Amino acid sequence: MPFAYLRTIHFPDTDAAGVVFFPNYFAMCHEAYEEALAAAGLNVAEFFSAHDLVVPVAKSSADYLRPLRVGDRIRITVRPEPLTENSFAIAYELFRLNPVEKLAARLRTEHVSTSLKLRERVPLPPALAAWVRQG
Amino acid sequence: MPFAYLRTIHFPDTDAAGVVFFPNYFAMCHEAYEEALAAAGLNVAEFFSAHDLVVPVAKSSADYLRPLRVGDRIRITVRPEPLTENSFAIAYELFRLNPVEKLAARLRTEHVSTSLKLRERVPLPPALAAWVRQG
Amino acid sequence: MPFAYLRTIHFPDTDAAGVVFFPNYFAMCHEAYEEALAAAGLNVAEFFSAHDLVVPVAKSSADYLRPLRVGDRIRITVRPEPLTENSFAIAYELFRLNPVEKLAARLRTEHVSTSLKLRERVPLPPALAAWVRQG
Amino acid sequence: MPFAYLRTIHFPDTDAAGVVFFPNYFAMCHEAYEEALAAAGLNVAEFFSAHDLVVPVAKSSADYLRPLRVGDRIRITVRPEPLTENSFAIAYELFRLNPVEKLAARLRTEHVSTSLKLRERVPLPPALAAWVRQG
Repeated sequence: MPFAYLRTIHFPDTDAAGVVFFPNYFAMCHEAYEEALAAAGLNVAEFFSAHDLVVPVAKSSADYLRPLRVGDRIRITVRPEPLTENSFAIAYELFRLNPVEKLAARLRTEHVSTSLKLRERVPLPPALAAWVRQG
Repeated sequence: MPFAYLRTIHFPDTDAAGVVFFPNYFAMCHEAYEEALAAAGLNVAEFFSAHDLVVPVAKSSADYLRPLRVGDRIRITVRPEPLTENSFAIAYELFRLNPVEKLAARLRTEHVSTSLKLRERVPLPPALAAWVRQG
Repeated sequence: MPFAYLRTIHFPDTDAAGVVFFPNYFAMCHEAYEEALAAAGLNVAEFFSAHDLVVPVAKSSADYLRPLRVGDRIRITVRPEPLTENSFAIAYELFRLNPVEKLAARLRTEHVSTSLKLRERVPLPPALAAWVRQG
Repeated sequence: MPFAYLRTIHFPDTDAAGVVFFPNYFAMCHEAYEEALAAAGLNVAEFFSAHDLVVPVAKSSADYLRPLRVGDRIRITVRPEPLTENSFAIAYELFRLNPVEKLAARLRTEHVSTSLKLRERVPLPPALAAWVRQG
Protein backbone atom coordinates (compact mmCIF):
# COMPACT_ATOMS: atom_id res chain seq x y z
CA MET A 1 0.00 0.00 0.00
CA PRO A 2 1.39 3.45 -0.85
CA PHE A 3 1.63 6.17 1.78
CA ALA A 4 -1.64 8.14 2.01
CA TYR A 5 -2.14 11.72 3.21
CA LEU A 6 -5.54 13.10 4.21
CA ARG A 7 -6.35 16.78 3.97
CA THR A 8 -9.25 19.23 3.77
CA ILE A 9 -9.45 21.92 1.09
CA HIS A 10 -9.31 25.39 2.63
CA PHE A 11 -10.10 28.88 1.39
CA PRO A 12 -6.41 29.87 0.89
CA ASP A 13 -6.10 27.00 -1.65
CA THR A 14 -8.76 28.50 -3.94
CA ASP A 15 -8.95 31.17 -6.63
CA ALA A 16 -11.60 33.49 -8.08
CA ALA A 17 -13.10 30.65 -10.15
CA GLY A 18 -14.22 29.15 -6.81
CA VAL A 19 -12.00 26.06 -6.96
CA VAL A 20 -8.42 25.06 -6.08
CA PHE A 21 -5.89 26.95 -8.26
CA PHE A 22 -4.18 24.30 -10.43
CA PRO A 23 -0.58 24.92 -9.23
CA ASN A 24 -1.78 24.34 -5.66
CA TYR A 25 -2.37 20.64 -6.46
CA PHE A 26 1.44 20.39 -6.59
CA ALA A 27 1.78 22.22 -3.27
CA MET A 28 -0.65 19.72 -1.67
CA CYS A 29 1.29 16.80 -3.17
CA HIS A 30 4.50 18.28 -1.75
CA GLU A 31 2.84 18.25 1.67
CA ALA A 32 2.08 14.55 1.13
CA TYR A 33 5.74 13.94 0.13
CA GLU A 34 6.95 15.65 3.32
CA GLU A 35 4.57 13.56 5.45
CA ALA A 36 5.73 10.37 3.70
CA LEU A 37 9.39 11.22 4.41
CA ALA A 38 8.63 12.12 8.05
CA ALA A 39 6.73 8.83 8.47
CA ALA A 40 9.85 7.03 7.17
CA GLY A 41 11.98 8.74 9.82
CA LEU A 42 13.68 11.43 7.71
CA ASN A 43 14.36 14.83 9.29
CA VAL A 44 12.29 17.05 7.01
CA ALA A 45 13.27 20.29 8.80
CA GLU A 46 16.87 19.54 7.82
CA PHE A 47 16.08 18.10 4.40
CA PHE A 48 13.96 21.01 3.14
CA SER A 49 16.34 23.84 3.96
CA ALA A 50 19.14 25.55 2.06
CA HIS A 51 22.17 23.20 2.08
CA ASP A 52 24.89 22.16 -0.33
CA LEU A 53 22.96 19.04 -1.24
CA VAL A 54 19.50 19.85 -2.61
CA VAL A 55 17.00 17.61 -4.39
CA PRO A 56 14.91 20.01 -6.48
CA VAL A 57 12.06 19.12 -8.81
CA ALA A 58 13.35 18.93 -12.40
CA LYS A 59 10.07 17.99 -14.12
CA SER A 60 6.41 18.01 -13.21
CA SER A 61 3.21 16.95 -14.93
CA ALA A 62 -0.45 16.80 -13.97
CA ASP A 63 -3.84 15.65 -15.25
CA TYR A 64 -6.65 17.55 -13.54
CA LEU A 65 -9.84 15.48 -13.66
CA ARG A 66 -12.20 17.17 -11.20
CA PRO A 67 -12.39 20.53 -9.43
CA LEU A 68 -11.91 20.82 -5.66
CA ARG A 69 -13.87 23.22 -3.44
CA VAL A 70 -13.60 24.58 0.11
CA GLY A 71 -14.50 21.84 2.59
CA ASP A 72 -13.75 18.94 0.23
CA ARG A 73 -11.87 16.06 1.86
CA ILE A 74 -9.05 14.58 -0.19
CA ARG A 75 -6.57 11.69 0.01
CA ILE A 76 -3.23 11.80 -1.79
CA THR A 77 -1.23 8.62 -2.37
CA VAL A 78 2.55 8.87 -2.79
CA ARG A 79 4.52 6.30 -4.83
CA PRO A 80 8.27 6.90 -5.30
CA GLU A 81 9.93 5.31 -8.34
CA PRO A 82 13.72 4.88 -8.73
CA LEU A 83 15.18 6.46 -11.89
CA THR A 84 19.01 6.66 -11.56
CA GLU A 85 21.39 6.80 -8.59
CA ASN A 86 20.98 10.59 -8.73
CA SER A 87 17.27 10.87 -9.33
CA PHE A 88 13.78 9.49 -8.70
CA ALA A 89 10.17 10.20 -9.55
CA ILE A 90 7.01 10.35 -7.45
CA ALA A 91 3.57 9.40 -8.79
CA TYR A 92 0.68 10.97 -6.90
CA GLU A 93 -3.03 10.18 -7.08
CA LEU A 94 -5.38 12.71 -5.55
CA PHE A 95 -8.87 11.47 -4.61
CA ARG A 96 -11.82 13.65 -3.67
CA LEU A 97 -13.60 11.71 -0.92
CA ASN A 98 -17.01 13.42 -0.94
CA PRO A 99 -19.82 12.83 -1.83
CA VAL A 100 -18.36 9.55 -3.16
CA GLU A 101 -14.71 8.79 -3.75
CA LYS A 102 -13.45 9.82 -7.20
CA LEU A 103 -9.99 10.26 -8.66
CA ALA A 104 -9.53 14.05 -8.98
CA ALA A 105 -5.97 14.34 -10.32
CA ARG A 106 -2.84 12.42 -11.25
CA LEU A 107 0.49 14.20 -10.77
CA ARG A 108 4.15 13.30 -11.21
CA THR A 109 7.38 14.97 -10.17
CA GLU A 110 11.02 14.10 -10.93
CA HIS A 111 13.71 14.99 -8.41
CA VAL A 112 17.46 15.27 -9.00
CA SER A 113 20.07 15.19 -6.23
CA THR A 114 22.46 18.09 -6.80
CA SER A 115 25.50 19.57 -5.09
CA LEU A 116 25.38 23.38 -5.19
CA LYS A 117 29.17 23.61 -4.61
CA LEU A 118 30.14 21.06 -7.26
CA ARG A 119 27.34 22.28 -9.57
CA GLU A 120 26.65 18.70 -10.61
CA ARG A 121 24.42 15.71 -9.93
CA VAL A 122 25.40 13.56 -6.96
CA PRO A 123 24.01 10.28 -5.56
CA LEU A 124 20.83 10.52 -3.49
CA PRO A 125 21.42 10.71 0.28
CA PRO A 126 21.22 7.13 1.67
CA ALA A 127 18.05 7.66 3.76
CA LEU A 128 16.24 9.15 0.75
CA ALA A 129 17.50 6.37 -1.55
CA ALA A 130 16.17 3.80 0.93
CA TRP A 131 12.76 5.52 0.98
CA VAL A 132 12.63 5.50 -2.84
CA ARG A 133 13.54 1.78 -3.03
CA GLN A 134 10.78 0.83 -0.58
CA GLY A 135 8.32 2.32 -3.09
CA MET B 1 -12.32 25.80 26.00
CA PRO B 2 -11.82 27.53 22.65
CA PHE B 3 -11.81 25.53 19.42
CA ALA B 4 -8.30 24.22 18.64
CA TYR B 5 -6.83 23.32 15.25
CA LEU B 6 -3.71 21.18 14.86
CA ARG B 7 -1.46 21.47 11.84
CA THR B 8 2.07 20.74 10.64
CA ILE B 9 4.21 23.40 8.94
CA HIS B 10 4.98 22.43 5.33
CA PHE B 11 7.47 23.61 2.73
CA PRO B 12 4.88 25.65 0.75
CA ASP B 13 4.30 27.78 3.89
CA THR B 14 7.92 28.95 3.99
CA ASP B 15 10.05 31.62 2.30
CA ALA B 16 13.72 32.11 1.45
CA ALA B 17 14.53 33.08 5.05
CA GLY B 18 13.79 29.43 5.93
CA VAL B 19 10.70 30.15 8.04
CA VAL B 20 6.96 30.68 7.54
CA PHE B 21 6.28 33.88 5.56
CA PHE B 22 4.47 36.26 7.95
CA PRO B 23 1.24 36.69 5.90
CA ASN B 24 0.86 32.89 5.92
CA TYR B 25 0.14 32.98 9.66
CA PHE B 26 -3.18 34.60 8.69
CA ALA B 27 -3.83 31.91 6.07
CA MET B 28 -3.29 29.22 8.72
CA CYS B 29 -5.63 31.05 11.13
CA HIS B 30 -8.22 31.20 8.36
CA GLU B 31 -7.96 27.42 8.06
CA ALA B 32 -8.62 27.20 11.82
CA TYR B 33 -11.66 29.53 11.42
CA GLU B 34 -13.05 27.29 8.65
CA GLU B 35 -12.57 24.19 10.80
CA ALA B 36 -14.25 25.89 13.75
CA LEU B 37 -17.27 26.80 11.59
CA ALA B 38 -17.46 23.30 10.11
CA ALA B 39 -17.30 21.78 13.62
CA ALA B 40 -20.26 24.02 14.55
CA GLY B 41 -22.25 22.65 11.62
CA LEU B 42 -21.95 25.54 9.15
CA ASN B 43 -21.67 24.76 5.44
CA VAL B 44 -18.26 26.24 4.68
CA ALA B 45 -18.39 25.34 0.96
CA GLU B 46 -21.43 27.60 0.70
CA PHE B 47 -20.21 30.23 3.13
CA PHE B 48 -16.82 30.83 1.49
CA SER B 49 -17.98 31.34 -2.08
CA ALA B 50 -19.07 34.39 -4.09
CA HIS B 51 -22.60 35.34 -2.95
CA ASP B 52 -24.54 38.50 -2.29
CA LEU B 53 -23.84 38.22 1.44
CA VAL B 54 -20.13 38.17 2.19
CA VAL B 55 -18.30 38.55 5.50
CA PRO B 56 -14.87 39.88 4.55
CA VAL B 57 -12.03 40.76 6.90
CA ALA B 58 -12.02 44.52 7.55
CA LYS B 59 -9.03 44.65 9.92
CA SER B 60 -6.19 42.37 10.88
CA SER B 61 -3.31 42.52 13.33
CA ALA B 62 -0.57 40.17 14.44
CA ASP B 63 2.28 39.85 16.92
CA TYR B 64 4.88 37.37 15.69
CA LEU B 65 6.82 35.97 18.65
CA ARG B 66 8.71 32.94 17.26
CA PRO B 67 9.64 31.63 13.82
CA LEU B 68 8.08 28.43 12.45
CA ARG B 69 10.00 25.88 10.35
CA VAL B 70 9.15 22.90 8.12
CA GLY B 71 8.00 20.00 10.28
CA ASP B 72 6.96 22.12 13.27
CA ARG B 73 3.68 21.08 14.87
CA ILE B 74 1.33 23.93 15.79
CA ARG B 75 -2.00 24.43 17.55
CA ILE B 76 -4.22 27.42 16.81
CA THR B 77 -7.02 28.42 19.18
CA VAL B 78 -10.01 30.35 17.81
CA ARG B 79 -12.05 32.72 20.04
CA PRO B 80 -14.83 34.71 18.34
CA GLU B 81 -15.90 37.98 20.03
CA PRO B 82 -19.18 39.79 19.27
CA LEU B 83 -18.77 43.42 18.15
CA THR B 84 -22.05 44.68 16.62
CA GLU B 85 -25.02 42.97 14.95
CA ASN B 86 -23.09 43.33 11.65
CA SER B 87 -19.60 42.42 12.79
CA PHE B 88 -17.40 40.30 15.04
CA ALA B 89 -13.73 39.70 15.80
CA ILE B 90 -11.67 36.53 16.19
CA ALA B 91 -8.68 36.28 18.52
CA TYR B 92 -6.21 33.55 17.57
CA GLU B 93 -3.31 32.15 19.56
CA LEU B 94 -0.79 30.08 17.65
CA PHE B 95 1.38 27.70 19.69
CA ARG B 96 4.47 25.88 18.45
CA LEU B 97 4.32 22.45 20.10
CA ASN B 98 7.93 21.27 19.66
CA PRO B 99 10.38 20.91 21.35
CA VAL B 100 8.26 22.34 24.19
CA GLU B 101 5.02 24.25 23.83
CA LYS B 102 5.49 28.02 23.34
CA LEU B 103 3.19 30.80 22.17
CA ALA B 104 4.44 31.68 18.66
CA ALA B 105 1.96 34.35 17.56
CA ARG B 106 -1.19 36.25 18.52
CA LEU B 107 -3.48 37.34 15.68
CA ARG B 108 -6.81 39.12 15.40
CA THR B 109 -9.25 39.66 12.55
CA GLU B 110 -12.45 41.72 12.32
CA HIS B 111 -15.23 40.59 10.00
CA VAL B 112 -18.11 42.67 8.64
CA SER B 113 -21.29 41.18 7.14
CA THR B 114 -21.98 42.98 3.87
CA SER B 115 -24.56 42.80 1.08
CA LEU B 116 -22.87 43.25 -2.30
CA LYS B 117 -26.19 44.27 -3.93
CA LEU B 118 -27.19 46.80 -1.26
CA ARG B 119 -23.55 47.93 -0.83
CA GLU B 120 -24.06 48.19 2.89
CA ARG B 121 -23.58 46.35 6.17
CA VAL B 122 -26.26 43.81 7.05
CA PRO B 123 -26.84 41.63 10.13
CA LEU B 124 -24.71 38.50 10.44
CA PRO B 125 -26.38 35.34 9.13
CA PRO B 126 -28.11 33.61 12.09
CA ALA B 127 -25.88 30.49 12.13
CA LEU B 128 -22.74 32.65 12.14
CA ALA B 129 -24.17 34.95 14.83
CA ALA B 130 -24.89 31.89 16.98
CA TRP B 131 -21.31 30.65 16.54
CA VAL B 132 -19.94 34.07 17.56
CA ARG B 133 -22.13 34.21 20.69
CA GLN B 134 -20.98 30.77 21.84
CA GLY B 135 -17.45 32.23 21.91
CA MET C 1 6.90 37.33 -32.02
CA PRO C 2 5.08 35.75 -29.07
CA PHE C 3 3.68 37.90 -26.27
CA ALA C 4 6.34 38.53 -23.60
CA TYR C 5 5.80 39.34 -19.92
CA LEU C 6 8.52 40.85 -17.73
CA ARG C 7 8.59 40.31 -14.00
CA THR C 8 10.89 40.41 -10.96
CA ILE C 9 11.14 37.49 -8.51
CA HIS C 10 9.94 38.50 -5.06
CA PHE C 11 10.26 37.02 -1.59
CA PRO C 12 6.66 35.65 -1.51
CA ASP C 13 7.53 33.50 -4.57
CA THR C 14 10.29 31.63 -2.69
CA ASP C 15 10.53 28.70 -0.28
CA ALA C 16 12.91 27.56 2.47
CA ALA C 17 15.40 26.23 -0.12
CA GLY C 18 16.00 29.89 -1.03
CA VAL C 19 14.56 29.68 -4.56
CA VAL C 20 11.16 29.91 -6.26
CA PHE C 21 8.87 27.04 -5.20
CA PHE C 22 8.28 24.93 -8.34
CA PRO C 23 4.44 25.27 -8.47
CA ASN C 24 4.90 29.05 -8.48
CA TYR C 25 6.40 28.87 -11.98
CA PHE C 26 2.85 28.00 -13.12
CA ALA C 27 1.40 30.90 -11.15
CA MET C 28 3.84 33.27 -12.89
CA CYS C 29 2.95 31.80 -16.29
CA HIS C 30 -0.72 32.33 -15.47
CA GLU C 31 0.06 36.00 -14.85
CA ALA C 32 1.68 36.11 -18.31
CA TYR C 33 -1.45 34.44 -19.81
CA GLU C 34 -3.68 37.09 -18.18
CA GLU C 35 -1.48 39.90 -19.49
CA ALA C 36 -1.53 38.37 -22.99
CA LEU C 37 -5.36 38.20 -22.94
CA ALA C 38 -5.64 41.76 -21.61
CA ALA C 39 -3.25 43.00 -24.33
CA ALA C 40 -5.55 41.33 -26.89
CA GLY C 41 -8.53 43.24 -25.50
CA LEU C 42 -10.23 40.49 -23.48
CA ASN C 43 -11.93 41.44 -20.20
CA VAL C 44 -9.89 39.36 -17.76
CA ALA C 45 -11.90 40.48 -14.69
CA GLU C 46 -14.95 38.89 -16.33
CA PHE C 47 -13.10 35.92 -17.82
CA PHE C 48 -11.40 34.77 -14.59
CA SER C 49 -14.44 34.71 -12.33
CA ALA C 50 -17.02 32.07 -11.47
CA HIS C 51 -19.42 31.75 -14.43
CA ASP C 52 -21.24 29.00 -16.27
CA LEU C 53 -18.56 28.91 -18.93
CA VAL C 54 -15.12 28.19 -17.47
CA VAL C 55 -11.88 27.27 -19.20
CA PRO C 56 -9.90 25.35 -16.57
CA VAL C 57 -6.47 23.80 -16.97
CA ALA C 58 -6.83 20.08 -17.74
CA LYS C 59 -3.13 19.21 -18.03
CA SER C 60 0.15 20.84 -17.10
CA SER C 61 3.80 19.99 -17.53
CA ALA C 62 7.09 21.68 -16.76
CA ASP C 63 10.83 21.29 -17.17
CA TYR C 64 12.73 23.28 -14.57
CA LEU C 65 16.23 24.10 -15.85
CA ARG C 66 17.55 26.77 -13.47
CA PRO C 67 16.64 28.08 -10.02
CA LEU C 68 15.24 31.60 -9.56
CA ARG C 69 16.11 33.84 -6.60
CA VAL C 70 14.77 37.07 -5.05
CA GLY C 71 15.62 40.00 -7.30
CA ASP C 72 16.04 37.94 -10.49
CA ARG C 73 14.49 39.52 -13.58
CA ILE C 74 12.56 37.12 -15.83
CA ARG C 75 10.77 37.17 -19.19
CA ILE C 76 7.97 34.72 -19.98
CA THR C 77 6.85 34.15 -23.57
CA VAL C 78 3.30 32.93 -24.23
CA ARG C 79 2.43 30.88 -27.33
CA PRO C 80 -1.15 29.57 -27.64
CA GLU C 81 -1.70 26.48 -29.83
CA PRO C 82 -5.13 25.38 -31.16
CA LEU C 83 -6.13 21.82 -30.21
CA THR C 84 -9.88 21.33 -30.86
CA GLU C 85 -12.86 23.69 -31.04
CA ASN C 86 -13.22 23.15 -27.27
CA SER C 87 -9.60 23.30 -26.20
CA PHE C 88 -6.15 24.81 -26.68
CA ALA C 89 -2.66 24.63 -25.23
CA ILE C 90 -0.17 27.30 -24.20
CA ALA C 91 3.60 26.83 -24.43
CA TYR C 92 5.60 29.06 -22.10
CA GLU C 93 9.32 29.75 -22.03
CA LEU C 94 10.69 31.40 -18.91
CA PHE C 95 14.04 33.18 -19.24
CA ARG C 96 16.20 34.44 -16.37
CA LEU C 97 17.66 37.73 -17.63
CA ASN C 98 20.55 38.20 -15.17
CA PRO C 99 23.56 37.97 -15.18
CA VAL C 100 23.17 36.79 -18.80
CA GLU C 101 19.96 35.57 -20.41
CA LYS C 102 19.34 31.83 -19.98
CA LEU C 103 16.29 29.65 -20.47
CA ALA C 104 15.15 28.75 -16.92
CA ALA C 105 12.01 26.67 -17.57
CA ARG C 106 9.64 25.39 -20.25
CA LEU C 107 6.00 24.93 -19.23
CA ARG C 108 2.81 23.86 -20.97
CA THR C 109 -0.86 23.99 -20.03
CA GLU C 110 -3.97 22.60 -21.76
CA HIS C 111 -7.28 24.39 -21.32
CA VAL C 112 -10.77 23.01 -21.94
CA SER C 113 -13.88 25.17 -22.40
CA THR C 114 -16.62 23.75 -20.20
CA SER C 115 -20.22 24.59 -19.31
CA LEU C 116 -20.83 24.02 -15.61
CA LYS C 117 -24.63 23.76 -16.17
CA LEU C 118 -24.43 21.32 -19.09
CA ARG C 119 -21.48 19.51 -17.47
CA GLU C 120 -19.85 19.12 -20.86
CA ARG C 121 -17.29 20.61 -23.19
CA VAL C 122 -18.45 23.56 -25.26
CA PRO C 123 -16.79 25.64 -28.01
CA LEU C 124 -14.28 28.27 -26.89
CA PRO C 125 -15.73 31.78 -26.54
CA PRO C 126 -15.11 33.63 -29.85
CA ALA C 127 -12.69 36.23 -28.43
CA LEU C 128 -10.60 33.50 -26.83
CA ALA C 129 -10.68 31.36 -29.98
CA ALA C 130 -9.46 34.37 -31.97
CA TRP C 131 -6.57 34.90 -29.54
CA VAL C 132 -5.58 31.23 -29.81
CA ARG C 133 -5.63 31.34 -33.64
CA GLN C 134 -3.38 34.41 -33.73
CA GLY C 135 -0.74 32.29 -31.98
CA MET D 1 7.36 61.75 -2.10
CA PRO D 2 7.31 58.17 -0.79
CA PHE D 3 8.44 55.30 -3.00
CA ALA D 4 5.54 53.99 -5.13
CA TYR D 5 5.11 50.51 -6.62
CA LEU D 6 2.67 49.78 -9.45
CA ARG D 7 1.17 46.34 -9.93
CA THR D 8 -1.76 44.53 -11.54
CA ILE D 9 -3.95 42.09 -9.59
CA HIS D 10 -3.66 38.57 -10.99
CA PHE D 11 -5.68 35.38 -10.63
CA PRO D 12 -3.17 33.73 -8.21
CA ASP D 13 -3.77 36.62 -5.77
CA THR D 14 -7.48 35.82 -5.45
CA ASP D 15 -9.68 33.40 -3.49
CA ALA D 16 -13.07 31.75 -3.93
CA ALA D 17 -14.88 34.95 -2.89
CA GLY D 18 -13.63 36.42 -6.18
CA VAL D 19 -11.31 39.02 -4.61
CA VAL D 20 -7.74 39.24 -3.28
CA PHE D 21 -7.31 37.05 -0.18
CA PHE D 22 -6.62 39.43 2.73
CA PRO D 23 -3.16 38.05 3.73
CA ASN D 24 -2.02 38.64 0.14
CA TYR D 25 -2.22 42.41 0.70
CA PHE D 26 0.83 41.93 2.95
CA ALA D 27 2.60 39.87 0.28
CA MET D 28 2.03 42.69 -2.25
CA CYS D 29 3.32 45.26 0.26
CA HIS D 30 6.40 43.09 0.79
CA GLU D 31 6.99 43.23 -2.97
CA ALA D 32 6.81 47.04 -2.72
CA TYR D 33 9.31 46.99 0.20
CA GLU D 34 11.73 44.88 -1.89
CA GLU D 35 11.42 47.26 -4.83
CA ALA D 36 12.00 50.25 -2.54
CA LEU D 37 15.18 48.66 -1.14
CA ALA D 38 16.41 47.72 -4.62
CA ALA D 39 15.77 51.29 -5.84
CA ALA D 40 17.92 52.51 -2.91
CA GLY D 41 20.77 50.25 -4.02
CA LEU D 42 20.44 47.41 -1.48
CA ASN D 43 21.19 43.86 -2.60
CA VAL D 44 17.80 42.23 -2.01
CA ALA D 45 18.96 38.77 -3.14
CA GLU D 46 21.46 38.85 -0.28
CA PHE D 47 19.19 40.61 2.20
CA PHE D 48 16.21 38.26 1.87
CA SER D 49 18.03 34.96 2.34
CA ALA D 50 18.89 32.85 5.38
CA HIS D 51 21.79 34.57 7.21
CA ASP D 52 22.84 35.20 10.78
CA LEU D 53 21.39 38.70 10.65
CA VAL D 54 17.70 38.67 9.82
CA VAL D 55 15.12 41.46 10.02
CA PRO D 56 11.80 39.66 10.43
CA VAL D 57 8.38 41.23 10.82
CA ALA D 58 7.45 41.38 14.51
CA LYS D 59 4.02 43.04 14.15
CA SER D 60 1.58 43.69 11.35
CA SER D 61 -1.75 45.45 11.04
CA ALA D 62 -4.12 46.26 8.21
CA ASP D 63 -7.33 48.11 7.43
CA TYR D 64 -9.02 46.71 4.34
CA LEU D 65 -11.26 49.37 2.77
CA ARG D 66 -12.10 48.03 -0.70
CA PRO D 67 -11.93 44.66 -2.46
CA LEU D 68 -9.48 44.05 -5.32
CA ARG D 69 -10.29 41.94 -8.40
CA VAL D 70 -8.36 40.35 -11.27
CA GLY D 71 -7.17 43.05 -13.66
CA ASP D 72 -7.31 45.90 -11.12
CA ARG D 73 -4.33 48.26 -11.25
CA ILE D 74 -2.90 49.26 -7.87
CA ARG D 75 -0.24 51.61 -6.48
CA ILE D 76 1.43 50.95 -3.12
CA THR D 77 3.35 53.71 -1.32
CA VAL D 78 6.10 52.74 1.13
CA ARG D 79 7.04 55.01 4.08
CA PRO D 80 9.67 53.70 6.51
CA GLU D 81 9.62 55.12 10.06
CA PRO D 82 12.55 54.84 12.52
CA LEU D 83 11.67 53.19 15.86
CA THR D 84 14.89 52.23 17.71
CA GLU D 85 18.44 51.44 16.59
CA ASN D 86 17.28 47.82 16.24
CA SER D 87 13.89 48.31 14.64
CA PHE D 88 11.73 50.30 12.27
CA ALA D 89 8.18 50.35 10.90
CA ILE D 90 6.79 50.71 7.39
CA ALA D 91 3.46 52.38 6.63
CA TYR D 92 1.88 51.32 3.35
CA GLU D 93 -1.05 52.81 1.48
CA LEU D 94 -2.58 50.72 -1.27
CA PHE D 95 -4.63 52.56 -3.92
CA ARG D 96 -6.90 50.95 -6.50
CA LEU D 97 -6.42 53.03 -9.65
CA ASN D 98 -9.50 52.02 -11.65
CA PRO D 99 -12.19 53.18 -12.43
CA VAL D 100 -11.10 56.19 -10.33
CA GLU D 101 -8.33 56.25 -7.75
CA LYS D 102 -9.44 55.21 -4.25
CA LEU D 103 -7.56 54.19 -1.14
CA ALA D 104 -8.11 50.42 -0.83
CA ALA D 105 -6.05 49.51 2.25
CA ARG D 106 -3.66 50.86 4.89
CA LEU D 107 -1.06 48.42 6.24
CA ARG D 108 1.81 48.61 8.72
CA THR D 109 4.67 46.28 9.57
CA GLU D 110 7.34 46.46 12.29
CA HIS D 111 10.75 44.92 11.64
CA VAL D 112 13.38 43.94 14.22
CA SER D 113 17.04 43.34 13.39
CA THR D 114 18.09 40.06 15.03
CA SER D 115 21.21 37.92 15.23
CA LEU D 116 20.28 34.24 15.00
CA LYS D 117 23.60 33.20 16.63
CA LEU D 118 23.40 35.66 19.53
CA ARG D 119 19.61 35.18 19.81
CA GLU D 120 19.20 38.88 20.48
CA ARG D 121 18.38 42.20 18.86
CA VAL D 122 21.25 43.93 17.09
CA PRO D 123 21.57 47.32 15.35
CA LEU D 124 20.11 47.59 11.84
CA PRO D 125 22.65 47.07 9.04
CA PRO D 126 23.95 50.53 7.99
CA ALA D 127 22.47 50.49 4.47
CA LEU D 128 19.05 49.57 5.85
CA ALA D 129 19.30 52.19 8.62
CA ALA D 130 20.13 54.81 5.98
CA TRP D 131 17.07 53.81 3.93
CA VAL D 132 14.84 54.08 7.01
CA ARG D 133 16.19 57.55 7.89
CA GLN D 134 15.52 58.86 4.37
CA GLY D 135 11.84 58.09 4.99
